[in-house]
Amino acid sequence: MKVNTTSKVKNKPILSNKATDVSNGVNVLVVGSVAYDTIQTPSGKRDNILGGSAVYFAYGASFFSPVSLVSVVGRDFSFEEELELLKARNVDLRGLVIKKGATFKWAGRYVGDMCYAETISHSLGVFGKFQPIIPSYYRNIPYVFLANGSPKLQKKILDQIKKPKLVFADTMNYWIENEKRALLHLIEQIDGLIVNNDEVRLLTGMYHTITAAREILKWGPQILIIKKGEHGALLVTKDDFFAVPGYPIEVVRDPTGAGDSFAGGMMGYLAKIDSPSLPNLKKAILHGNVVASFTIEDFGLEKLKQLSPKQVEERYKKLLGMMRL
Amino acid sequence: MKVNTTSKVKNKPILSNKATDVSNGVNVLVVGSVAYDTIQTPSGKRDNILGGSAVYFAYGASFFSPVSLVSVVGRDFSFEEELELLKARNVDLRGLVIKKGATFKWAGRYVGDMCYAETISHSLGVFGKFQPIIPSYYRNIPYVFLANGSPKLQKKILDQIKKPKLVFADTMNYWIENEKRALLHLIEQIDGLIVNNDEVRLLTGMYHTITAAREILKWGPQILIIKKGEHGALLVTKDDFFAVPGYPIEVVRDPTGAGDSFAGGMMGYLAKIDSPSLPNLKKAILHGNVVASFTIEDFGLEKLKQLSPKQVEERYKKLLGMMRL
Repeated sequence: MKVNTTSKVKNKPILSNKATDVSNGVNVLVVGSVAYDTIQTPSGKRDNILGGSAVYFAYGASFFSPVSLVSVVGRDFSFEEELELLKARNVDLRGLVIKKGATFKWAGRYVGDMCYAETISHSLGVFGKFQPIIPSYYRNIPYVFLANGSPKLQKKILDQIKKPKLVFADTMNYWIENEKRALLHLIEQIDGLIVNNDEVRLLTGMYHTITAAREILKWGPQILIIKKGEHGALLVTKDDFFAVPGYPIEVVRDPTGAGDSFAGGMMGYLAKIDSPSLPNLKKAILHGNVVASFTIEDFGLEKLKQLSPKQVEERYKKLLGMMRL
Repeated sequence: MKVNTTSKVKNKPILSNKATDVSNGVNVLVVGSVAYDTIQTPSGKRDNILGGSAVYFAYGASFFSPVSLVSVVGRDFSFEEELELLKARNVDLRGLVIKKGATFKWAGRYVGDMCYAETISHSLGVFGKFQPIIPSYYRNIPYVFLANGSPKLQKKILDQIKKPKLVFADTMNYWIENEKRALLHLIEQIDGLIVNNDEVRLLTGMYHTITAAREILKWGPQILIIKKGEHGALLVTKDDFFAVPGYPIEVVRDPTGAGDSFAGGMMGYLAKIDSPSLPNLKKAILHGNVVASFTIEDFGLEKLKQLSPKQVEERYKKLLGMMRL
């Protein structure tokens, strides 16, 4: 099933108030990295903390629905406590495999407005040879997030899933520059692509974001989400725009994981509601935006670890208030 | 009279649908520059086109209410046609004086994301010695905009106005760095300050925008508007936030004048309604945002010159639609 984004139904208030009626929702599958991050920002530095796209996504989605995670770590991995916390939040870690070798390590810094991370060093370790096999008991999961990675690999993962309801993928400049053909092939088969302004331009060779966004929608996906960091996000569909302002944060300590926890919050909410429609997608984006706004308030997962679904809901209501005339 | 921004009335729908009932509104006074601009952007170059804060403001406000302009030009000034167009839009130019000397000239370029203009050269000419005398017939104008300029001068202008209803001021990093004491003195006496993120930080020495914004509100003004370029704007009052997303523009050709035409659209709309309240201020900010979104679609005043109030209203409705869940 696909999200119906045509103008015919866009104002139809499908399930508009069901968010609080559904307690569990269906499953979300994420395939991505689990990593050791070393992060420097104007607020300080942290060495070898738990990170990675799959982890941030899982934390973000866990406020709303059960999550199944597929990733790989090395034998040096030692974040048992954090993983127990994920399990306690209904994150299924049976898809996390341990291989001989080292866990993915990334070191980066953010300066000034912290719009971009500057990579100081990275070492892919076992993640570099990752050929994920989706366990049979994960293959019917309806909501699927392909975190940033080689598009060839993303495609291989997707091919293992049976009739997903909704597939979103993330990518980055490296894949656009080095594996564009494979990426275009993947894009044809997904429902939604999550990118930033620069990636939209790089992908299309078009300077103006909106023109470029419309071009990408011709290639297959029905949904394009343009992340704008602290400035929020923009949803572009064939017939519609939805502009999400950034939630004004008092203290931005570390932007790492903002994009993945945004995607997690969004897809977790969609899985909770389990009825893809444009109004629900808009609410999902706002929930993702709220989760990401918490993520960046502290280093790594510090903020998300102590956060309750109630706090997420409270900030969601505040954000709605800020958007109200 | 001051805008009531307290939480007691913030949800009271004062005049919420009166925008279209008021045809003329009261006057807005702008004191600022009239200039020759030479502009380079990724979209091209224009030499010696009409610009200046007062001109952009007046064009922006003229969609909603009569405007009175106070500024100075040199004897080299030759934009009669453009000024006739302003007059036709109910802009009173009796306050525009001609002095011996040259008109203010500015040359700048925008690169990449065009977030900032890089000044290539500027020559203040007669604007450098500008000591504006507000004509007696302007001194009762209720809505006043003090465009970017020396805060000492802004203060002198304000002192000549009799009981204004609402005074907004703009400033820039130069004045914060070189005339901070005078600026703080001015800020005490105005209702609203319009700044960008960097200026908020520079003014307070605080890194985090929201904390800094709250600090500025302690100094006197009830309203702080943080411009975020193509990412929209944020309204901060003691008890409230209002986040305006950027209107997604297909083609951004030249950001010059965005801030001043935003201020013009906002104050022009407030003057049209002539009933300051928080809901009206929010609508005014959205109207300013819409006017600015047109400004940046073409060089200088090209877009605003051919624009009708109906087109502004249509885009305003589109923007509302994009913000709706």
